Amino acid sequence: MNLFLPLKIMGALLVYLSAALLVPIPFSLYYGDGAAAAFVYSALVCLFVGLLLWKRIRTHKDFGTREGFAVVSFGWLFYAFFGALPYLFSGAIPAPVDAVFETMSGFTTTGSTILTEIESLPESILLWRALTHWIGGMGIIVLSLAILPMLGVGGMQLFRAEAPGPTADRLKPRIQDTAKLLWGVYVLLTAAETLLLMLGGMSFYDALCHSFATLATGGFSTRNASVAAFDSAYIDWVITFFMFAAGVNFSLHYWALKGKVRDYFKNEEFLFYSALTLGVTTIICLLNQGTVYASFWDNLRYSAFQTSSILTTTGFGTADYERWPVLAQYLLVFLMFVGGCAGSTGGGIKVARILLLFKHAHHQLFRLIHPRAVRLVKLGDIPVDRDVMQSILGFFALFMGVFVVASFLMAATGLDLLSASGAVIATLGNIGPGLGSVGPVDNFAHITDFGKSVLILCMLMGRLELFTVLVLLFPTFWRK
Amino acid sequence: MNLFLPLKIMGALLVYLSAALLVPIPFSLYYGDGAAAAFVYSALVCLFVGLLLWKRIRTHKDFGTREGFAVVSFGWLFYAFFGALPYLFSGAIPAPVDAVFETMSGFTTTGSTILTEIESLPESILLWRALTHWIGGMGIIVLSLAILPMLGVGGMQLFRAEAPGPTADRLKPRIQDTAKLLWGVYVLLTAAETLLLMLGGMSFYDALCHSFATLATGGFSTRNASVAAFDSAYIDWVITFFMFAAGVNFSLHYWALKGKVRDYFKNEEFLFYSALTLGVTTIICLLNQGTVYASFWDNLRYSAFQTSSILTTTGFGTADYERWPVLAQYLLVFLMFVGGCAGSTGGGIKVARILLLFKHAHHQLFRLIHPRAVRLVKLGDIPVDRDVMQSILGFFALFMGVFVVASFLMAATGLDLLSASGAVIATLGNIGPGLGSVGPVDNFAHITDFGKSVLILCMLMGRLELFTVLVLLFPTFWRK
Repeated sequence: MNLFLPLKIMGALLVYLSAALLVPIPFSLYYGDGAAAAFVYSALVCLFVGLLLWKRIRTHKDFGTREGFAVVSFGWLFYAFFGALPYLFSGAIPAPVDAVFETMSGFTTTGSTILTEIESLPESILLWRALTHWIGGMGIIVLSLAILPMLGVGGMQLFRAEAPGPTADRLKPRIQDTAKLLWGVYVLLTAAETLLLMLGGMSFYDALCHSFATLATGGFSTRNASVAAFDSAYIDWVITFFMFAAGVNFSLHYWALKGKVRDYFKNEEFLFYSALTLGVTTIICLLNQGTVYASFWDNLRYSAFQTSSILTTTGFGTADYERWPVLAQYLLVFLMFVGGCAGSTGGGIKVARILLLFKHAHHQLFRLIHPRAVRLVKLGDIPVDRDVMQSILGFFALFMGVFVVASFLMAATGLDLLSASGAVIATLGNIGPGLGSVGPVDNFAHITDFGKSVLILCMLMGRLELFTVLVLLFPTFWRK
Repeated sequence: MNLFLPLKIMGALLVYLSAALLVPIPFSLYYGDGAAAAFVYSALVCLFVGLLLWKRIRTHKDFGTREGFAVVSFGWLFYAFFGALPYLFSGAIPAPVDAVFETMSGFTTTGSTILTEIESLPESILLWRALTHWIGGMGIIVLSLAILPMLGVGGMQLFRAEAPGPTADRLKPRIQDTAKLLWGVYVLLTAAETLLLMLGGMSFYDALCHSFATLATGGFSTRNASVAAFDSAYIDWVITFFMFAAGVNFSLHYWALKGKVRDYFKNEEFLFYSALTLGVTTIICLLNQGTVYASFWDNLRYSAFQTSSILTTTGFGTADYERWPVLAQYLLVFLMFVGGCAGSTGGGIKVARILLLFKHAHHQLFRLIHPRAVRLVKLGDIPVDRDVMQSILGFFALFMGVFVVASFLMAATGLDLLSASGAVIATLGNIGPGLGSVGPVDNFAHITDFGKSVLILCMLMGRLELFTVLVLLFPTFWRK
């Protein structure tokens, strides 16, 4: 592998990051929160290191699959490290491991936090926290709809045909065009949510931060009590709607804006995702009615919010689901593994993969009864070829494997079984809150540095569809 | 499907069962426990119904794959229902659902019990309980090494070549010959263990019951405190050794008795299984040393016993592992999913499948780096073709799917999350004790009848490698 090329690209990415670090400065000055200098220093460090890498590395252009994997993994790692600088410089998060945890949680749109007290932090720092979600979400959309399908990761090649943009085989123009089109949709939805939240009485600052966190299915809030702090049914429903939208393949939104609204209802993954949202919300409503909530409308509001928040892996909270009936909790744990649609900003295994796992199992049963029948597994009208299926099944096995190993390591740090697995699925699925001592009303502050490092890796692996990170462990990957 | 043919075969199986029901009678008379009449009545019912089905059903011999599936599933169901008669007739277990639970747990070699007090029951009833394990184990060996490979279930066709006996394609002689050879090994090992346990001071009756339960990886004991009641290091080690042996592919034992002892060490599944046993025992020893046990030899004895008991899905207990360090518990939960080797009497997903899942995931990663390389996944020297791999991956997906759905249903009966999933993996993996309120010092008595019925189905599905039972749910399966 040509290591210099990915490092050179990291340089360019750091220069972009230095520009993003300027965004919180006007907020800092407006609120007089005293953190402006931390952003200036951070931006300068990124600019300096970025230019150094970008301009000083001279390498021939030999960009292949392996360099692609390196760029993606390094990209999130570099952002997690350099994006942590404002937390350290401002003193908002003094411990380096904590700062990297919070930043990785931001850029991977996870939303797990090590902060025990949020509202006392400078406004600009909280904006940066939300902004890391938003930038991470942009990265994910392009990654899942333009880059991973080309690298052939985890069956994502299935979605190659759906993404907008030219279908030319050359990597660079394709990625750039797809990115521009999809980012347009992303910006539009963010603006719409911000506006709607402001109509509900939120300040521009709060509305912007929460919209960043919603569209990225992140989950960082500006309040200790998360969205519950606003205590408004209107705000809850607006956020529920946009969480649902953020869990949908962004290509579908693009085509809908182009007038092809019917495409939603032709898309099998979207239909299954909608059915799952509605189905689980209904069951949880039935379980909570009369036991947790007396009013039907309150029940619907809280049940729908928590269901969407967990399924889309956003992680906002308006209720402590650990106090709900066990069966409701069980459904939410199941949703944690499912996650959003492929091509959305949501995490987890992805709705399409779960759907195809069911279909594969059904197909295997069918073949036992009809050994000579020729029938293909399909997603919508698209036949799923065996290589893609193998890839999806491999992804599932790997996901469960990483889940088991990481839970074991977390248990080794002294967590109980439920909290250990809860912490892993919360980060590996890029959800945010977990179960037990890392549940919706707790945080990750009490975990050891070793444990936090394991979870940082889980966030990275989960976000980059496992394969992208794990290939780096192969010695042959690094060979010339 | 020709439903009459499987029913006719059920008739023959019931006649065999009526013979088996005579075995406890001499014990009943010797101990004067008053349960002899219950066995006589049960044997008569089985003989009558058996002869009725066997002799009165006239059908043309049209035995295909579908009839094979029906025979296997019906076989275990019929045995669970008719084998429950002595419990009901003797009044040892008065509730029908409980009696069927206990019998299904016996014949599927699970070892989960609804009994809260064991030692006050008639000796002959406890012998019958152990005998159901032993008969079930015989069924499993033939099923997994002769029948399922031919039906092409869950990748078991991989082991077709290893089994002893003629390799002719005709089903009947092949099954009969393989059965005779392997049952010889099974009887020999049972006799050896009985003798060794008697040398340790056990009565013939206790030794026989525990040997039945060990070789079948069942786990029913004649004592309330399970094997801990004998409080003998010698007995613990004898049982540990035979549990380990029962978790090995019985074909390997057969070839070893034929002089090919080296075959063990050429078998990749056996090596992985041994490494897993040794590795987990070592880690658990390290975790327990000084915290749970002061003496090294006590520690090794209890850690090795519990590890073997869980990995082989036997379920005997000499220690309450829920009081061990969380990490040790976590390892045991992981082993619950793994189970014994294919072709053993152990349950779970099976060592070979877990090994192949790892290999598949590794292969998928390798292919991303070397897209043009041609490399096959192998088990030992045998290349695993893609159909077998698809089947194994389908099995894994299905196992996790059934686990999720069944845990959900158990949570619906009011169990907490840990107990609900613990009860399901304990029965689906044919282990015996689970976690939480169904842990090693608890039992399944407190579960609702609905919950018990779900677990009865889990035992059946787990034992028959899922596919065998689930195909019966297809409407096309029943069509002519």
